[in-house]
Amino acid sequence: MKRFMLALVALTFSALAFGQVNVVYQLSDGVAQATRAMGNIRNHLNADPTVKIVVVAFGAGIDFLLDGAQTTTQQPFAGAIGELAGRGVEFRVCNNTLNSRNLSRDKVVMEAKVVPSGVAEIANLQAKEHFVYLRP
Amino acid sequence: MKRFMLALVALTFSALAFGQVNVVYQLSDGVAQATRAMGNIRNHLNADPTVKIVVVAFGAGIDFLLDGAQTTTQQPFAGAIGELAGRGVEFRVCNNTLNSRNLSRDKVVMEAKVVPSGVAEIANLQAKEHFVYLRP
Amino acid sequence: MKRFMLALVALTFSALAFGQVNVVYQLSDGVAQATRAMGNIRNHLNADPTVKIVVVAFGAGIDFLLDGAQTTTQQPFAGAIGELAGRGVEFRVCNNTLNSRNLSRDKVVMEAKVVPSGVAEIANLQAKEHFVYLRP
Repeated sequence: MKRFMLALVALTFSALAFGQVNVVYQLSDGVAQATRAMGNIRNHLNADPTVKIVVVAFGAGIDFLLDGAQTTTQQPFAGAIGELAGRGVEFRVCNNTLNSRNLSRDKVVMEAKVVPSGVAEIANLQAKEHFVYLRP
Repeated sequence: MKRFMLALVALTFSALAFGQVNVVYQLSDGVAQATRAMGNIRNHLNADPTVKIVVVAFGAGIDFLLDGAQTTTQQPFAGAIGELAGRGVEFRVCNNTLNSRNLSRDKVVMEAKVVPSGVAEIANLQAKEHFVYLRP
Repeated sequence: MKRFMLALVALTFSALAFGQVNVVYQLSDGVAQATRAMGNIRNHLNADPTVKIVVVAFGAGIDFLLDGAQTTTQQPFAGAIGELAGRGVEFRVCNNTLNSRNLSRDKVVMEAKVVPSGVAEIANLQAKEHFVYLRP
């Protein structure tokens, strides 16, 4: 019993102190924010190669994940999305946004997963899965 | 003693893993942000009916909580505020903002509670009351 | 052993419930955001004199920390920065931003410390040093 609890406490402390850093990036502002965010995330991965990053997009924030989307300098987002997905970044799109904008799922790039609610996703990642928050 | 500590650890773990999700929404950008936020919060409650949401407004973010405030499509905010308050959402207004803008408390809708400092409220909810953060 | 673990649990609980509140302020939007933030941080310290505040700036958010920077009302930022630094606020600047904008470190005010990555700094403060997040 004592040993079990010691292990439990040790586990908790080590997870908090040394464990995986998990970050949810909220994108909700449109392509200018998304353009900056691609660079932020690349820099974040370079600074901390073990960080786990999940991008949750809702509202105008989903635009960069639609097929054919372009950055503020008219580059396709596809390259950056593919590169970051290849480095382990996940992209999640709010289904409420798709519905309210009458967009079907097949307009969304294949790297992105659709979730029921962007805001609930962001809250739950923080409250239940030890993610910290960043809104670039 | 062992039993007490086991209960304590179990309590902590279950609270973290399965408990109430508490979210503070920061509104500090004006009526465009507040208009979007009313929809975000409605969607959040629909996705997770047990979520506890506290809206903390400061700076230009308090405008939607002033009497007679209208959304970007010229609808009164009163309807959405009343509806969300009825679903358990709390609204808190920064007193520093009221003072710096020479607004008296009676200009604020009755659903909102005045707190000394919006930023301190947001930090304290996160640091002391297990709230997670969302800035729509 | 029992005593040790009780102390550990008590320590953890008291740290969470009553301890120091640590807040990271993200500045990434330019001098308008920074102008507002100086007032927010002053109000925060007045409301909670024991709060620990670290400002992390990246992107356009670093502009107010460059020598000679002025607020939206053409006041030098130097006064507010010096005052807040004197009250214990720390300022950290993203080196990736300096590099991408070809700015040398000696353009940055002496109160600010350069960190490798602003976004990694913000995530690590939250994940590893018990900081909560605020983006004014």
